[in-house]
Amino acid sequence: MILGIDIGGTTSKLGLVQEGRVIARARIHTTGHADDRAFADALANEARQLAVAQGATITAIGIGAPNANQLTGIIEMAPNLPWKHDVPLARMMSDRLGVPATLGNDANAAALGEWRYGAGQGIDDLLVVTLGTGVGSGFIVNGRLVLGSAGNAGELGHMILLPGGRACTCGRNGCLEAYVSIRGMIATYHEAASDMPQAASSPTDVKSIADRANTGDTAAIACFQRTTEWLAIGLANAVCATGPKRIVLFGGIARNGELLMAPLRERFHATLLNIYQGRVDLTVSALPDDDAALLGAAALGELAAYLPQRS
Amino acid sequence: MILGIDIGGTTSKLGLVQEGRVIARARIHTTGHADDRAFADALANEARQLAVAQGATITAIGIGAPNANQLTGIIEMAPNLPWKHDVPLARMMSDRLGVPATLGNDANAAALGEWRYGAGQGIDDLLVVTLGTGVGSGFIVNGRLVLGSAGNAGELGHMILLPGGRACTCGRNGCLEAYVSIRGMIATYHEAASDMPQAASSPTDVKSIADRANTGDTAAIACFQRTTEWLAIGLANAVCATGPKRIVLFGGIARNGELLMAPLRERFHATLLNIYQGRVDLTVSALPDDDAALLGAAALGELAAYLPQRS
Repeated sequence: MILGIDIGGTTSKLGLVQEGRVIARARIHTTGHADDRAFADALANEARQLAVAQGATITAIGIGAPNANQLTGIIEMAPNLPWKHDVPLARMMSDRLGVPATLGNDANAAALGEWRYGAGQGIDDLLVVTLGTGVGSGFIVNGRLVLGSAGNAGELGHMILLPGGRACTCGRNGCLEAYVSIRGMIATYHEAASDMPQAASSPTDVKSIADRANTGDTAAIACFQRTTEWLAIGLANAVCATGPKRIVLFGGIARNGELLMAPLRERFHATLLNIYQGRVDLTVSALPDDDAALLGAAALGELAAYLPQRS
Repeated sequence: MILGIDIGGTTSKLGLVQEGRVIARARIHTTGHADDRAFADALANEARQLAVAQGATITAIGIGAPNANQLTGIIEMAPNLPWKHDVPLARMMSDRLGVPATLGNDANAAALGEWRYGAGQGIDDLLVVTLGTGVGSGFIVNGRLVLGSAGNAGELGHMILLPGGRACTCGRNGCLEAYVSIRGMIATYHEAASDMPQAASSPTDVKSIADRANTGDTAAIACFQRTTEWLAIGLANAVCATGPKRIVLFGGIARNGELLMAPLRERFHATLLNIYQGRVDLTVSALPDDDAALLGAAALGELAAYLPQRS
């Protein structure tokens, strides 16, 4: 049985995964531990209890985390995690549980999860895009995850969409993520609302913008229209790189169903370079919301033997 | 010995390649043949004569051509070639010469040529960008050329750089190719000159813009500055996809030496997302100008066994 671990800023989840399903779950706080070693001890302890309760043997560990480098197994100075230094979490967990552990960044884990268990099954040229607080991506080419020479490929959210545009958290301007993330959509709502006479309270999440759009709020409708247009260009540009057969969207924004997807599909296909038309489809994650990150992490563990390895 | 063939709009070149060097060359007109079969007959005839003259045996054929699909071996309705239908040139040449033939698009051939014989040797995560009439590209990931699910990956020139911008030959607007190709640079020169009092005759190629820049023509200097800025963004965006270790620039525009490369390197490194800084370098082709396309085609033939194959 594979242990999947999803490291988040406040909570870290563990799951035992068998044949693409999470059969037991646990969670611990990411914060509040004396140091990274104490955190790893707590994770390992929780994992042992899970396995004992299920009468299961853990054969491999997969860990998804922000700022994780799959080539080295190290979480590199993650701004949203408690440790401001490099944490070699793959080795730390492998040492504690005595089985191989693979660490990967959360967007790459999501890509492998969709490929192995979700909407990308059987699709060896795949792009998975996570739309949430940030915009992450994982490119699968010819049945392999693209890691890049330094282990950090697949940063679609930081392709520059509008040169000289909005400030991005990366310190540059105009990145796709500055427009189509949660923060980006809220900013777009305010830009749209400032052009309009109505005075509404400020939305703080995408769901409330979607609710407003569904009741005819013109700023909310404009926000979805602009987001759709920008995301269509971003996805069409990504297709020009690796020529995927399918794109899977994942995360909170993608969950707004046909409010986003119907116009997005239309704009995406209209924006796509002619030679790709009819050759790439666009869909949403097929994994259960609560389990997607754990399944992705488990896919990392399961597929470790097939992933590129560097010294 | 490998036969490399480079199919151009007016002339097609043949070369016998041994250990990364072209040891004998020939050329025929691409136009003026009764049909595609007559053209293939003429190519095969020329190849036989070359081999006889060198006392050489051809063991494999590699062919670079515009609009070539490497997965199928077919030139697909190339707008700049005489045949407005699909031409299965790989099979046609293989039948005539009795050895395996591999067809690939010219930018992918250039990428393989640089990887095998040129500035990309030993670099398994590589991006090669051809800057000329158009902007082509070939992505090599983990030691393999990225073909994409339909055999047409690697269209960096058609990533949209400025949404709603200049009309591109592809029918859309704002593509990188509309700015940093030969046509794009001439358009940029005219835009810059229209802001300036001087009246100079129109440049018709990049060399004449470079010559003017070297003599202090302010429109020409502005043209190079703007081209540099746009190309830096386009390359930084490509890095976000596959995380290459090196980018090799190839083609007429890249040949303007330090007039382009010195400021481009500075802008590229300044534009690059922080996690890639210090991890990717930018250089120009190391292949002799006249032989680069033939060597790329030969690399296609030589590497056929290592390339992704689909049914």
